[in-house]
Amino acid sequence: MRVALAQINTTVGDVWGNVEKAASALERALEDGADLVAFPELTITGYPPEDLLLRPDFIRANLEGLEEFAGRVPEGVIAAVGFVDLAGDLYNSCALVSGGEVLHRYHKHYLPNYGVFDENRYFREGEGVPVLSVDGSLAGVNVCEDIWYPGGPAREQALAGASVLINISASPYSRRKGLFRERMLAVRASDYGCYVFFCNLVGGQDELVFDGHSVAIDPQGRLLARARQFEEDLLVLDIHPEEALIHRLHDPRPRKENPGGSPVVVEGPSLIQKKPQEGIEPRVEELLPEEGEVLEALTLGLRDYFQKNGFSRAVLGLSGGVDSSLSAAIAARALGPENVTGVLLPSRYTSQGSNTDALALAKNLGIEVLEIPIEPAFSAYGEMLADAFRGLPEDVTEENLQSRIRGNVLMALSNKFGWILLSTGNKSEMSVGYSTLYGDSAGGFAVIKDVPKTLVYRICRHINETEGREVIPKSVLTKEPSAELREGQKDTDSLPPYEVLDPILEAYIEEDKGVGEIVAEGYDEEDVRRVVRMVDAAEYKRRQAPIGIKVTSRAFGRDRRMPITNRYRERRPKL
Amino acid sequence: MRVALAQINTTVGDVWGNVEKAASALERALEDGADLVAFPELTITGYPPEDLLLRPDFIRANLEGLEEFAGRVPEGVIAAVGFVDLAGDLYNSCALVSGGEVLHRYHKHYLPNYGVFDENRYFREGEGVPVLSVDGSLAGVNVCEDIWYPGGPAREQALAGASVLINISASPYSRRKGLFRERMLAVRASDYGCYVFFCNLVGGQDELVFDGHSVAIDPQGRLLARARQFEEDLLVLDIHPEEALIHRLHDPRPRKENPGGSPVVVEGPSLIQKKPQEGIEPRVEELLPEEGEVLEALTLGLRDYFQKNGFSRAVLGLSGGVDSSLSAAIAARALGPENVTGVLLPSRYTSQGSNTDALALAKNLGIEVLEIPIEPAFSAYGEMLADAFRGLPEDVTEENLQSRIRGNVLMALSNKFGWILLSTGNKSEMSVGYSTLYGDSAGGFAVIKDVPKTLVYRICRHINETEGREVIPKSVLTKEPSAELREGQKDTDSLPPYEVLDPILEAYIEEDKGVGEIVAEGYDEEDVRRVVRMVDAAEYKRRQAPIGIKVTSRAFGRDRRMPITNRYRERRPKL
Repeated sequence: MRVALAQINTTVGDVWGNVEKAASALERALEDGADLVAFPELTITGYPPEDLLLRPDFIRANLEGLEEFAGRVPEGVIAAVGFVDLAGDLYNSCALVSGGEVLHRYHKHYLPNYGVFDENRYFREGEGVPVLSVDGSLAGVNVCEDIWYPGGPAREQALAGASVLINISASPYSRRKGLFRERMLAVRASDYGCYVFFCNLVGGQDELVFDGHSVAIDPQGRLLARARQFEEDLLVLDIHPEEALIHRLHDPRPRKENPGGSPVVVEGPSLIQKKPQEGIEPRVEELLPEEGEVLEALTLGLRDYFQKNGFSRAVLGLSGGVDSSLSAAIAARALGPENVTGVLLPSRYTSQGSNTDALALAKNLGIEVLEIPIEPAFSAYGEMLADAFRGLPEDVTEENLQSRIRGNVLMALSNKFGWILLSTGNKSEMSVGYSTLYGDSAGGFAVIKDVPKTLVYRICRHINETEGREVIPKSVLTKEPSAELREGQKDTDSLPPYEVLDPILEAYIEEDKGVGEIVAEGYDEEDVRRVVRMVDAAEYKRRQAPIGIKVTSRAFGRDRRMPITNRYRERRPKL
Repeated sequence: MRVALAQINTTVGDVWGNVEKAASALERALEDGADLVAFPELTITGYPPEDLLLRPDFIRANLEGLEEFAGRVPEGVIAAVGFVDLAGDLYNSCALVSGGEVLHRYHKHYLPNYGVFDENRYFREGEGVPVLSVDGSLAGVNVCEDIWYPGGPAREQALAGASVLINISASPYSRRKGLFRERMLAVRASDYGCYVFFCNLVGGQDELVFDGHSVAIDPQGRLLARARQFEEDLLVLDIHPEEALIHRLHDPRPRKENPGGSPVVVEGPSLIQKKPQEGIEPRVEELLPEEGEVLEALTLGLRDYFQKNGFSRAVLGLSGGVDSSLSAAIAARALGPENVTGVLLPSRYTSQGSNTDALALAKNLGIEVLEIPIEPAFSAYGEMLADAFRGLPEDVTEENLQSRIRGNVLMALSNKFGWILLSTGNKSEMSVGYSTLYGDSAGGFAVIKDVPKTLVYRICRHINETEGREVIPKSVLTKEPSAELREGQKDTDSLPPYEVLDPILEAYIEEDKGVGEIVAEGYDEEDVRRVVRMVDAAEYKRRQAPIGIKVTSRAFGRDRRMPITNRYRERRPKL
């Protein structure tokens, strides 16, 4: 049996585009002689469609899309394709299609409703775990979350005799998740004595990137094939369902646990005897290192945000700092350097070194540069506010004003030329509110908003290493971070050093630890309390920030839903 | 039996503050001779605590808070108080407390996970429907959503013999919802043959306002008492559980449907024989008309956002238009006129009438006024951008720039003086993106973001009528709406008239109708398509907007979760 995993990049809402893309991947799989072709979860609608699912006209369009796709599937082959079924209620579903007909509609059992997921908002939980009979072998099809539960439908299908499990997924990326997922799938395969095929979505959708990384695993839990990360791919390989049976006859576990009775079997087609095919050598793509993985996630996320929304050109401010440098480098990779404009916006506090570094970076990347000094506007505001501010000392107001003038200039370029403004703040800054609302936080997309500062440095070094040249100028990586909004300012005036700040933030935000637990890990109590206060107080700023790609296990946005109005303080007040 | 509904205004996260507030309401109820005192849902944590619920230290604090509160409840009385129970998993719970002890922990069965609700994200569904035995009568306690299901736990408790049902709730406000809810509760009471006590939360929490409007209903479905809307209240009344029994013996429905068997009964305390009390005349508060209701919701929501976050003063731009006028009027009501500063920010396009109207409004409200012309900054930007824009005509860029200069000036005042900037856009504008990001949309709180333009006018007229004077100057209400960002500009240059726009928006956004269905209601197809396109395209702007109070059945924000990247178009393309 030849199985193809069509790891395609669908677009939310684009029913007819998704149908065409799936149909063309199907065609290529058939040219390769595939008998069974799997697609990602919710192929037809894209994932996640969010509240589009509450619109009847959208559900209908999706059903028409499925029908259209089914018409493209010839006899003697089977396609497993994701769609939204309307059967009294809505179900996140996988259709088994052959010869123009939908043979079966499997309804996802386990609906994720944590982290970035809201599936209980839309879907009803499915029931029943039929298996598909194909030329004397049994196969089980299930959807994403279903295989994460060790006692879920995948197990039931295996116990019912399935030699092959096909899981269609839309499993979003976060760092270090790929191998964790692969390990889980390997254990499922060996626990159940089945081949496991995992077909994942690839592509960017707003805050999420789906990393592809589809795999095929044999009944002993060995990796047979692995598709590319962060790219479309078609992974084709041959298996012998009989081998799963042999394996299972030697493993007491599936036999002892078999509940008995007759499984519900969907009759599949007889596979058409293809003309003798050449054997296919299973392909195992190498995995990227962590920095490379995050870099590719950000690149794909940014590229897809632009392409899927019909944008082509980006603009961003270049300060000579590490954040804008990395953001520009990612934009150049994602969109092509010819589509990126960097803008130097010097003020009276901008050092010569910052300008030099920014220009060197732009040259290394091959992007266009503009230079627009902000003094005229800064003086004008000073004049306009002189009356209202009379007698008051300068403070953060004047710092924010500089940042907001930069935001205005960049937005004016965006409006005039149709360029999308990228904001360049990192996760450490976003966490503690070290940014100016409507200033440096302005933009349509925040490229590195979920990348902690220490990881920003690591990715920059990774780029320089893999490119074998100094893309990010060395001085950008070695100088002390500064917002340059007043004389001699350094980030460490307001924040602990990033090597201390980042682990505290990770413990508080990604791991939901309390102050006591973080202090117990060896951090200074005053530091921890101050950081926690800053994180809580910055919630209103984050709520108005542009979206950006999730790369950590807990990103701001749909992944972490904190109230702005929040009077929780860990210490019980003296009563 | 004397029952008190303690309709209190809790604060999310403020465990110890909430305990104190509940304890002091309890004290007052006891002074009034109450036997049974009910509080709103999740009394101890506030509602909704969102992802605070994922923090173990917060859950522990809430359990300590419950213990502290229980210690304040004397013997011979019962309190029904909301908290988060940790019993293997988390439950949205109601504790029955008496004599310092928790007699029972009821776990909410039905977890809302639609609209603004995410309870499946946090809680496990409860099981079991015990009834509480109190001096020979049975009472059933349940939580919010539980009573919305006609076949849910409230029914089971009634069939088990409960004469009294107590529902503790956090039911958020949207317009026209109060009477709808009251009607449902009345039918539950008469269907089940029970007294129904509904104790609702009151207060603002970020985007939500809880409207209070607690009620007591007799076994025939007649309203006995109604608490105030949008204010804290303590509603006390006497009932005779025996009357419910008499009523039920005459109604075949509870008797025929009784499943038989013995209900699970929690033994309540013997009610202490209070010294003979005077009878209490049940109080039925009058309901506000729709405009008044929305006005009070906005006022309370704004006031609580300020108070609960520790802010006192607000600043906003006054354009002389109806939106900023209403926003200022609400701010003056919510915070006191002495805490509001209105700023006139005239440009070359500002008409004399606008300035006059803005000054008249400020005078009527008694708020402080500043005037800061924006020309100096506008010229400075023109100079700074001259090179980059050489040879290009003026367009929306220059319009946005004016709006952003105003945003900057207002934010500078906010930064310098610690005033919170209010943004003043209405829902019609938010829907179609008729606003400038970082310009007029800037602010910490968007007072009328969920109020359609036609309702803005109605509320203004309502204010003038109820105050018996022209608070909002008449010319503000009669002149044609204009953003005044270029010569002779009118809103209708870019938009259909609001009388046409608003119903299209309501159909598309609140009712999720498709283009075809809206056209079928009699609207011009080109208008409908254009509006729908504008709404879809403005999603990225809304994502960066400040929060504001939900008053419609579908507000932007947590209530409507649309993807930004969304290629759904209703018309199937020609293939």
